[in-house]
Amino acid sequence: MFDHIRFVLVETSLPANIGSAARAMKTMGLHALHLVAPKTLPDDSATALAAGADDLLEQAPIHPDLSSAIADCTLVIGMSARARRLDWPQLNLDEMAALLLRTDAKVAILFGSERSGLTNPQLQACHYHVHIPSDPSFSSLNLAAAVQIVAFVLRDHALKIGVTPKISNQASKVTQQDMEALLDHFQTTLTAIQVINPQHPRDTLARLQRLLLRAQLDPAEIGLLHSILQAVDKLGML
Amino acid sequence: MFDHIRFVLVETSLPANIGSAARAMKTMGLHALHLVAPKTLPDDSATALAAGADDLLEQAPIHPDLSSAIADCTLVIGMSARARRLDWPQLNLDEMAALLLRTDAKVAILFGSERSGLTNPQLQACHYHVHIPSDPSFSSLNLAAAVQIVAFVLRDHALKIGVTPKISNQASKVTQQDMEALLDHFQTTLTAIQVINPQHPRDTLARLQRLLLRAQLDPAEIGLLHSILQAVDKLGML
Repeated sequence: MFDHIRFVLVETSLPANIGSAARAMKTMGLHALHLVAPKTLPDDSATALAAGADDLLEQAPIHPDLSSAIADCTLVIGMSARARRLDWPQLNLDEMAALLLRTDAKVAILFGSERSGLTNPQLQACHYHVHIPSDPSFSSLNLAAAVQIVAFVLRDHALKIGVTPKISNQASKVTQQDMEALLDHFQTTLTAIQVINPQHPRDTLARLQRLLLRAQLDPAEIGLLHSILQAVDKLGML
Repeated sequence: MFDHIRFVLVETSLPANIGSAARAMKTMGLHALHLVAPKTLPDDSATALAAGADDLLEQAPIHPDLSSAIADCTLVIGMSARARRLDWPQLNLDEMAALLLRTDAKVAILFGSERSGLTNPQLQACHYHVHIPSDPSFSSLNLAAAVQIVAFVLRDHALKIGVTPKISNQASKVTQQDMEALLDHFQTTLTAIQVINPQHPRDTLARLQRLLLRAQLDPAEIGLLHSILQAVDKLGML
């Protein structure tokens, strides 16, 4: 599904962030991680935080510069910390996902360093810039958190446009007859124990009916309520 | 915009994850963090990873148990690591965001421990379960990454729909405390009339709890159910 998409971490400082990014990708079904000139090569802290995504780390090509990491790509997206830092074609996350899921281009998504994000020359190597709409008063997204959001949006869109199995409606097995029988039972029992005034039975019953309909009971729950009422009935006969 | 929504981290093991979660929330404009029985109180590693979101950490109430963290909440959402672990009302992330952005209920979103997520009793305290659709073959989402995704989805929906006036939620007047009192009454009464086997009380009660939460009772309905149970109680004393 995502074989044509690689995530490229550019000049990352902390190996821990590389590990967390690998884990974030893998949870969303993305597997192609590329590193450009990391300040420190992935180490034990990266592997620890990858938490089972160390296969992505081990397979990640390490490039000396950005050019080499995107040489064979035909569509390059740059994650930009600020909206419209350069006057450049912009996509929002939804537009990005829609584009990437229908293209057969080889795609690179670039994430800049923790401290300063992508530099202007790096941003200028991109076809589009994408900005994650964080709170302007605190926009300090962690690198792995940004990777997690982008990977999630891709997966979320893929699941929405893909064929997803429908969950069957549990309420569908309860007929109107079942509900009427249950309400009759409530009426009989609650009249016997004088919760319902036989002169004005409808009000309490109507309130119960509204509550039970709203709950969309399943057949087992109908059975449970009958058995509770039966226990009360028996008590009344003692 | 999000003043009515708190994120509740339950029995978190690693202070670093609490710090990362605080940062993840704040980048998306969410500020109410609550902690339930953290294995280690937030410390320097939490503050370091909060990276400017330490105000959320400092203001975060620390509760001895889940009940106290959600006592005043009227809508409780549990993040579930697996889809349909219990047969319980489910929302997907979009449905959750749509619901939370139009309700004026006081909302808690629960995140379980790193190792095992929310326990079954914790999940049973929720009105809805929400599952992040990770890759089934590697669903190991980091706690702070899950917080980041949920916070992002909330912000993303809010930005898409714009600022809209809150509509009132009929369920909004029923607190978690009211529900607990009602369930306690059911337990006492149904045990007395032997619907509940005192050796295995949880199954019947859990089924009733699920049904009653799904019905989103209003205060008058809570009163009606108490009065029915009282009538049964009286009958037992004859």
